[in-house]
Amino acid sequence: MPDRPDHSDGPGADELAALDAHWRAANYLSAGQIYLLDNPLLTEPLRPEHIKPRLLGHWGTSPGLNLVHTHLNRVVRARDLDVVCVWGPGHGGPAVLANSWLDGSYGEVYPDVGRDAAGMARLFRQFSFPGGVPSHVAPETPGSIHEGGELGYSLAHAYGAAFDHPGLVVACVIGDGEAETGPLAASWHSNKFLDPVHDGAVLPILHLNGYKIANPTVLARLPEPELDELLRGYGHLPIHVGGDDPLQVHHDMAVAMDTALDRIALLQHAARREGVTERPRWPVIVLRTPKGWTGPKDVDGVPVEGTWRAHQVPLSGVRDDPGHLRRLEEWLRSYRPAELFDDHGRPRPEVLACVPAGPRRLGASPYANGGLLLRELPLRPLEEYAVPVKAPGATRHEPTRVLGGLLRDVMTDTADRRDFRLVGPDETASNRLEAVLESTAKAWQEDVLATDEHLDRHGRVMEVLSEHLCQGWLEGYLLTGRHGLFSSYEAFVHIVDSMVNQHIKWLRTTRTLSWRRPIASLNYLLTSHVWRQDHNGFSHQDPGFVDHVLNKSPEAVRVYLPPDANTLLAVADHVLRSRDYVNVVVAGKQPCFDWLGLDDARVHCARGAGIWEWAGTENGGSPDVVLAAAGDIPTQEVLAAAGLLRRHLPHLAVRVVNVVDIARLMPQEEHPHGMPDHEYDALFTPDRPVIFAYHGYPWLIHRLAYRRTGHRNLHVRGYKESGTTTTPFDMVVRNDLDRYRLVMDVVDRVPGLAVPAAPVRQAMADARARHHAWVRAHGTDMPEVAEWAWEPSSRPLEP
Amino acid sequence: MPDRPDHSDGPGADELAALDAHWRAANYLSAGQIYLLDNPLLTEPLRPEHIKPRLLGHWGTSPGLNLVHTHLNRVVRARDLDVVCVWGPGHGGPAVLANSWLDGSYGEVYPDVGRDAAGMARLFRQFSFPGGVPSHVAPETPGSIHEGGELGYSLAHAYGAAFDHPGLVVACVIGDGEAETGPLAASWHSNKFLDPVHDGAVLPILHLNGYKIANPTVLARLPEPELDELLRGYGHLPIHVGGDDPLQVHHDMAVAMDTALDRIALLQHAARREGVTERPRWPVIVLRTPKGWTGPKDVDGVPVEGTWRAHQVPLSGVRDDPGHLRRLEEWLRSYRPAELFDDHGRPRPEVLACVPAGPRRLGASPYANGGLLLRELPLRPLEEYAVPVKAPGATRHEPTRVLGGLLRDVMTDTADRRDFRLVGPDETASNRLEAVLESTAKAWQEDVLATDEHLDRHGRVMEVLSEHLCQGWLEGYLLTGRHGLFSSYEAFVHIVDSMVNQHIKWLRTTRTLSWRRPIASLNYLLTSHVWRQDHNGFSHQDPGFVDHVLNKSPEAVRVYLPPDANTLLAVADHVLRSRDYVNVVVAGKQPCFDWLGLDDARVHCARGAGIWEWAGTENGGSPDVVLAAAGDIPTQEVLAAAGLLRRHLPHLAVRVVNVVDIARLMPQEEHPHGMPDHEYDALFTPDRPVIFAYHGYPWLIHRLAYRRTGHRNLHVRGYKESGTTTTPFDMVVRNDLDRYRLVMDVVDRVPGLAVPAAPVRQAMADARARHHAWVRAHGTDMPEVAEWAWEPSSRPLEP
Repeated sequence: MPDRPDHSDGPGADELAALDAHWRAANYLSAGQIYLLDNPLLTEPLRPEHIKPRLLGHWGTSPGLNLVHTHLNRVVRARDLDVVCVWGPGHGGPAVLANSWLDGSYGEVYPDVGRDAAGMARLFRQFSFPGGVPSHVAPETPGSIHEGGELGYSLAHAYGAAFDHPGLVVACVIGDGEAETGPLAASWHSNKFLDPVHDGAVLPILHLNGYKIANPTVLARLPEPELDELLRGYGHLPIHVGGDDPLQVHHDMAVAMDTALDRIALLQHAARREGVTERPRWPVIVLRTPKGWTGPKDVDGVPVEGTWRAHQVPLSGVRDDPGHLRRLEEWLRSYRPAELFDDHGRPRPEVLACVPAGPRRLGASPYANGGLLLRELPLRPLEEYAVPVKAPGATRHEPTRVLGGLLRDVMTDTADRRDFRLVGPDETASNRLEAVLESTAKAWQEDVLATDEHLDRHGRVMEVLSEHLCQGWLEGYLLTGRHGLFSSYEAFVHIVDSMVNQHIKWLRTTRTLSWRRPIASLNYLLTSHVWRQDHNGFSHQDPGFVDHVLNKSPEAVRVYLPPDANTLLAVADHVLRSRDYVNVVVAGKQPCFDWLGLDDARVHCARGAGIWEWAGTENGGSPDVVLAAAGDIPTQEVLAAAGLLRRHLPHLAVRVVNVVDIARLMPQEEHPHGMPDHEYDALFTPDRPVIFAYHGYPWLIHRLAYRRTGHRNLHVRGYKESGTTTTPFDMVVRNDLDRYRLVMDVVDRVPGLAVPAAPVRQAMADARARHHAWVRAHGTDMPEVAEWAWEPSSRPLEP
Repeated sequence: MPDRPDHSDGPGADELAALDAHWRAANYLSAGQIYLLDNPLLTEPLRPEHIKPRLLGHWGTSPGLNLVHTHLNRVVRARDLDVVCVWGPGHGGPAVLANSWLDGSYGEVYPDVGRDAAGMARLFRQFSFPGGVPSHVAPETPGSIHEGGELGYSLAHAYGAAFDHPGLVVACVIGDGEAETGPLAASWHSNKFLDPVHDGAVLPILHLNGYKIANPTVLARLPEPELDELLRGYGHLPIHVGGDDPLQVHHDMAVAMDTALDRIALLQHAARREGVTERPRWPVIVLRTPKGWTGPKDVDGVPVEGTWRAHQVPLSGVRDDPGHLRRLEEWLRSYRPAELFDDHGRPRPEVLACVPAGPRRLGASPYANGGLLLRELPLRPLEEYAVPVKAPGATRHEPTRVLGGLLRDVMTDTADRRDFRLVGPDETASNRLEAVLESTAKAWQEDVLATDEHLDRHGRVMEVLSEHLCQGWLEGYLLTGRHGLFSSYEAFVHIVDSMVNQHIKWLRTTRTLSWRRPIASLNYLLTSHVWRQDHNGFSHQDPGFVDHVLNKSPEAVRVYLPPDANTLLAVADHVLRSRDYVNVVVAGKQPCFDWLGLDDARVHCARGAGIWEWAGTENGGSPDVVLAAAGDIPTQEVLAAAGLLRRHLPHLAVRVVNVVDIARLMPQEEHPHGMPDHEYDALFTPDRPVIFAYHGYPWLIHRLAYRRTGHRNLHVRGYKESGTTTTPFDMVVRNDLDRYRLVMDVVDRVPGLAVPAAPVRQAMADARARHHAWVRAHGTDMPEVAEWAWEPSSRPLEP
């Protein structure tokens, strides 16, 4: 048992008064940010010119967030805890900014906005003002790891932050609006994956202020016994707090916090010291306070406090309506600012009595600036995993299985540090990464049966059938200073399109903030991809995630399509060492020809795109045509087409280009990896036909390369939504990405062929017809495809 | 009370035997589809050549689905019910196909695959075979409204199907894997929105077979009391069934079904006949049966039945391993096929004893082929809503508010039919569509307080803070023959990227199936768009959904960007009448200049793109430059730029083009709306500079138009991720979409200007500098922008 006193009586009158002073100060500062351009301390009567011309921001959630922050301050200070808080209602920016200003962390990061009258004036003015700070809890906000504008991800972020931080308590305020979202609803079950020994604790605080923008919320209107059943069904022990009498709520909230933290300490002690292995029933605090509490009770004859009308700006006509202006002044003065701040605008000692010191302050926690905690990931030499390549295409390996060896050793080499996790929606084995399970297990806190394999309470492979949880957990994990990889079926990563948007926005912004230290990149391994959905078909075929991320801030986005096992290793090594990116790696899990030895793979991946001389027939001269590929299946089809061209059009000078780093195709000015025009021209020629076989939607290549000199000659093949359950080769034929079609494209586009083109074209059409008949008769790919392999030859074959 | 007998004793021995026969037949047919190429009735010993060369499909979930189907048959027949079933584990295609074959509906739709030996042989062979049918419950499957490959949406679809179908019971099988997803977790609360009077019932059947692909499931490993609390917390009454003794499970399942349906009847009777308004506690069936039940218990020394190893193909080496072949034959013969099918392969009468008749069969329900039930939506003449336009830009309206009037009348005119719903994540008022609330209310089954507005148990506006639920409900509603509109903040519609993928795939496929009747389109109204996020900033700014959908099957996707109120009306009228599309309409909610009167708007929207002669200065001649716009804010900036050009470069012949239907830019061969090259050239010229101001990511326009003759001269401005909380005009300046930048683009790109270009360029740069200083000083847009309005003039202004 922890040696804590019994807190059930709660704080005394003096402490309650001080807590209330802090809360009033935070409320005053929150309202001030929304309304005031000047006169921050109300040293003179409020006049219209003191009011911002555009009133923007969200008051409704702010008093509740301030209450939580005040009481987190109290327990951090009393118990000397490391706490970070994830503010789910991130639109309540004024509240978190107010608290960060009060605890001094804001002024440490932004010295212009210190704890005095001038700083307070700047705090108010800058809020939601052009050139100022966003209206939400944003990357710019000290102590924050969560923007919250989109709603849904707070609790998953909180768990991600808690994993492998055994000394940390992650509080998480969940708004009752956010609680209606799918990702949040799924996140409650994260407690089935939290190891009480090696992980920290998550303290969810479900804040029921009752309303969204325009409606009551589902959870706030449940009868309390039904809500209680729900939370118990989620595996929690609910602690209820509520009311609208500030001092009573302060008292009850302090008791609730103490009860929750005592219980957390007890459960951790039991698991860590007493060997208890039963899944803990962690506490959850249910906090019911009015929306817009302490704001105007009613405005223009309709109720505001305690209703949805308090969501944004309760008094909207302040500059023009003297009545509203008077109401605002009354409201602001109701906090008794002169009691809270001295004549210089400095918070009085009573206000700051609950505020902890140094890095224990929520605004100054190193956990919320994860780069401060980040260590280099131990990565062994790739030689330990590389597949030997005597000749291109002579052997085949499953690229992701090869990568599995590397990931296994990362797991082994971080076994003590515990700062690497692999997440995926029940797909680690399906994606052939199961070598990692030789080193660690899959995290699991529920019962384990005799037939189960690789399940353990302390495992660091995270499998849950929710891409949202995988993404949210990993984001929280990375943002608090660790490393990881998310392996997903390619099609279903679209489930987190919107989450990755928000993470890219976060990274883009933090890159401009010198005090935010770089964090490990968010690495996706997209496999079980569009071309190999033999079991599942159309619903599992979608290569559009690359298009999605390439629309976003180029400084934070990288996309790689390694064509074989060794290039996948080289890419993986690179992305695992990188910082502040979203890296998307698309790679196959099926047996794939090994094209490049490790050294060649390293060079090729470092360049991002290059000529494969050994596969072409230009012999150093100028090519008649360029065959380009990005992706494993396109690479295979391009090489098969090159082989067919050697046979059928032996005098044609063919160049084979392979692209790994897809952003290299972009103009230099549009992406940091974009290649200069002269390099693009040297690779693709300015004037020869380029037949480009691309893994995904073909028009993406046009969108990247439309400014290039040779763009007119660029002809792209790729996935065009012709999907179903069929054989691998039938998939490429259906989408016109097959070797025969590529040869036909060459024949159609190279002017003045020395050999008559028609017979070659006919031969290709015949091969496609043979395929069609064979696959429908046999259900397999025809032998000439199934048994195809690259024939290495430096000279053109005889026709 | 319904006049049903008491079923608590369950069925007698004969009925149990018949139910078991039906179940065995379905299991036999399921396994047969996965394995057999020939010898469907096992009339001879199984040989390798009878086995498919590629073994694909999912056995694990199939026996459970077959059990549910058998028992749904029983209650449909016994109670003469209209039931559709949403099969969440849609990868269990073999099961639903087997049942549809057994109830005869399959053979009615596909006469080659009738209920005889030849039909059975085809049923087996075609499954997951090239040219055959997909391995999942797909659009091709009679009785299905749900593909299920992605997992997560079954329960939301079920509720959507039940809304406004008071006579329907929608059963919904939820796999315990799917139950881990976010959308499914949120869907449980859909019961807070189901009206027991006007809506049908949803019967969730949570199928705990314990495992996903490679792991146990979270819910299956919960202690039963904890699971019970969870389901009660969701507002349900759980009914538990489980075991592995078939006859006992048949008995218990029959009792559970009767209990559930009795309760549903009771609750509906209470609400409909007795005026009970309390929110019902609807039943949920929890079904625990082994994964891969009745399949091989173990294979090669490891347990298979009842573990994750049964997920796909339990015996994988059947063609090559005589032991596996023998085990397969034993397995198939364990169902005693000779007792189930006669010598001609026809199911024996006992097998069909539970099968209902005609349209009551799950495979033949018209509810699952919603186009059969669809009625034209009553739409009044647009003249009733159109805003008068005396001159372009003379007045301003909020386009979505104008649309609200139309939607209000649709609600009014469908008040009795109840076949139109408006869904949105708590944003109907925020998106300024609140006129609909004059006609109907927001659906709400929880308590209503005195301060609430527009909440009602019978309302048809659906607001919940979950885009997943909005989308899932609407899909289910449309798929069962009704109409609707989804209004969303533009940025957050990305949350359903993956769902819309699946719906587009569904529509694309149904378009090839003549027996599937067209359904109403899924209509998105995307508003609160990227350019007007004054309150929220960067997290709320993302125009990429258009890019996402335009990657998908062009036959099923349409995108419209109406630039003002009347064009929005014309577009809305069109999309609400359309069938089998996903229509994306992007429109603003802020006051916007009225450019076109209704007649002009109709013509302009029908063309999809056109020259606005009144805004240009070419006077019928050939333009020096084309200013094009798509979207409301770009249109405003282009017209402002045109005005500046009239002033500064009066002799420049400027053409103004406006694009509403963005797919018109695509080549004719790539999209049904793509315009022929001669039309494109006539509009944009083949050789003049085109400055295109686009609402979203600028490269989308290049991706659509890269094949056009004049593409080299196309210069696009749009959103480039420069977002924050700021003024509307500052947003366009930050992204270089502003009028001054557009004029600079013209100056930079039109060769040989008669007037020296440098001073004009400087004037524009000065204006941008003025803006910069003003907005940072005042926090508002400068008067020359804020007060700008189009000056109609047919002649160039004096310089």
